[in-house]
Amino acid sequence: MSSELKRISASGLEAFIARAFAAVNVCDIEARSIAELMVRADLSGADGHGVFRLPQYIRRIKGGAVNVKPAIRVVREAPGMALVDGDNGMGHLVMRFAAEKAIEKARTAGVAWVGVKWSNHAGPASLYASMPIAHDMIGLYLAVGNANHLAAWGGLDMLLSTNPIAVGIPADKEPPIVLDMATTVAAYGKVKTAAQRGETMPDGWMIDREGRPLTDPRRANEGLLLPIGGYKGYGLALVFGLLAGTLNGAAMGREVVDFNADDKSPTNTGHVIVAINVSAFRPPAEFKASVDGLIRDIRKSKRLPGVDAIRLPGERSHAKRAERTKLGIPLTAPLLDNLNQLAAELKIAALG
Amino acid sequence: MSSELKRISASGLEAFIARAFAAVNVCDIEARSIAELMVRADLSGADGHGVFRLPQYIRRIKGGAVNVKPAIRVVREAPGMALVDGDNGMGHLVMRFAAEKAIEKARTAGVAWVGVKWSNHAGPASLYASMPIAHDMIGLYLAVGNANHLAAWGGLDMLLSTNPIAVGIPADKEPPIVLDMATTVAAYGKVKTAAQRGETMPDGWMIDREGRPLTDPRRANEGLLLPIGGYKGYGLALVFGLLAGTLNGAAMGREVVDFNADDKSPTNTGHVIVAINVSAFRPPAEFKASVDGLIRDIRKSKRLPGVDAIRLPGERSHAKRAERTKLGIPLTAPLLDNLNQLAAELKIAALG
Repeated sequence: MSSELKRISASGLEAFIARAFAAVNVCDIEARSIAELMVRADLSGADGHGVFRLPQYIRRIKGGAVNVKPAIRVVREAPGMALVDGDNGMGHLVMRFAAEKAIEKARTAGVAWVGVKWSNHAGPASLYASMPIAHDMIGLYLAVGNANHLAAWGGLDMLLSTNPIAVGIPADKEPPIVLDMATTVAAYGKVKTAAQRGETMPDGWMIDREGRPLTDPRRANEGLLLPIGGYKGYGLALVFGLLAGTLNGAAMGREVVDFNADDKSPTNTGHVIVAINVSAFRPPAEFKASVDGLIRDIRKSKRLPGVDAIRLPGERSHAKRAERTKLGIPLTAPLLDNLNQLAAELKIAALG
Repeated sequence: MSSELKRISASGLEAFIARAFAAVNVCDIEARSIAELMVRADLSGADGHGVFRLPQYIRRIKGGAVNVKPAIRVVREAPGMALVDGDNGMGHLVMRFAAEKAIEKARTAGVAWVGVKWSNHAGPASLYASMPIAHDMIGLYLAVGNANHLAAWGGLDMLLSTNPIAVGIPADKEPPIVLDMATTVAAYGKVKTAAQRGETMPDGWMIDREGRPLTDPRRANEGLLLPIGGYKGYGLALVFGLLAGTLNGAAMGREVVDFNADDKSPTNTGHVIVAINVSAFRPPAEFKASVDGLIRDIRKSKRLPGVDAIRLPGERSHAKRAERTKLGIPLTAPLLDNLNQLAAELKIAALG
């Protein structure tokens, strides 16, 4: 496959994405803001959540499912929380607003929990969980996924999504710890990427409706994703969905709209971002030195036979970011074709 | 096994536990408070976290590891958070204090995050995550476990514990949703219970230091617990430990004391309890009706072949609580022997 990969610079990709959103009437500042966040996803290696999603985002805007002129605002507030109404805007804009609100509030509140309703798919969870890090804060993010591919444990009705959790934790000399995971063995974005690349899925990602392994990603909509740890992952997906969805008055359970199949309906996506100000608990320098110590203890652990290295959450993304910032973002030939076809439809300059 | 089970009434067991703590100089009110919480654990079916732990708790008090006259107090506070120093008191007392503080603060703050340091083992996570429910609040609990039986993914050095998460969510006519799970496939308490019952562990709970399955619970200290979802469960154990331990100035990584093997050292156990006031987000009646709706959708889901019922997190505990409140708490013969041997040592009335 790698011979078919073409590298595009981050700035080139960002300009392209901004042109695409501007072409569907997103104002320039907001188009650039979305583009910057989407490219940040691609730089970090979140290939299923960056520019890969652009055609779908544009299709849903054109279908009337997403509001290109949202009035994103705080609708409820108390010292330790806020509730943001995204007015059905692009999720990236809504979540940047919510994360900034959480950071601002956590300066005085110590911890600020910001719930979000009427948002949309916002890319990878790590984007928002990482935002507090530069402020010596920890970020905790939860969301309701935008398509139900998971059933309750033992069930067949797909009432749950891959509801992810992400946590970003500042370190000192070491890269921050950034965990970003779906509560399913595989995120649905990975299934979509596998389908586009013509790859087979490993056993354990999905089952069919008889409970048998399903490994062809093109048949994904005949099957169910499997939760991590069986009933435990089902429990996590459920409670994260209640916190990010139901509590905020956002969609959960059978209210969830499959944004892969529907270009017309708002999703009312719910998220949570919590900013935890380290300085409210202990001196940040002391905390970050402890985090460094733990990272080093883990990295130099004795290893099981056959293991080449022990990694921290976020370590691969950190390395990808360095590599891709320097060499550009690798796009597969089919993805590049899709994007340039989109450019033609939107009558904007192609990616090259 | 069931022929060897003897049922003891909750009130009888509670009085017994209170006598035991009073005999090691815990004041009466606090002894009764600990006893009430421990029996609440047994009533809910958390067999590895209730009276089963009593001999160990008493042994550690006698060894000087735990402070029987703690001055539990808030040492840092901001509108959305507090940090509690448990002064090395029994974890149950410290966590009850912390949960009450979180509930009180969430009345005005909307959400209150209370971190805890210098605590001890506090029984099952669900005890504290459930406390906010009666106040129409959601409870979220994290902790650092009291023995490291988990390594980083691919590693052998046991730097992590089974760091659990619990979430309690109020419903209306349905029982509340209460998720309580270790980030390992099996909690270590389950391993200890299996050892005491002479049972074999299923494949997938533990591996030995060569990576081979370990199924004899009496050999547990030669092996490692396995995290749920492989590297994902490792990531969860790590970030929950950073939030509950490192952030609060409590033990994490190699600072964790194995309270199964050590009767002299304080553990400096860290926990987090977050109280989320539903009314800050939306009218509680509306929220609870939505939770009921979701519970019913899940329960009446179509089922995979061979599945008899679909359960919600907390449903089995709820049923056990009803049964055990009525019929008493079943104790195995070896556990009853241990408890009555303890009674003889402490010169208190036996359990009968």
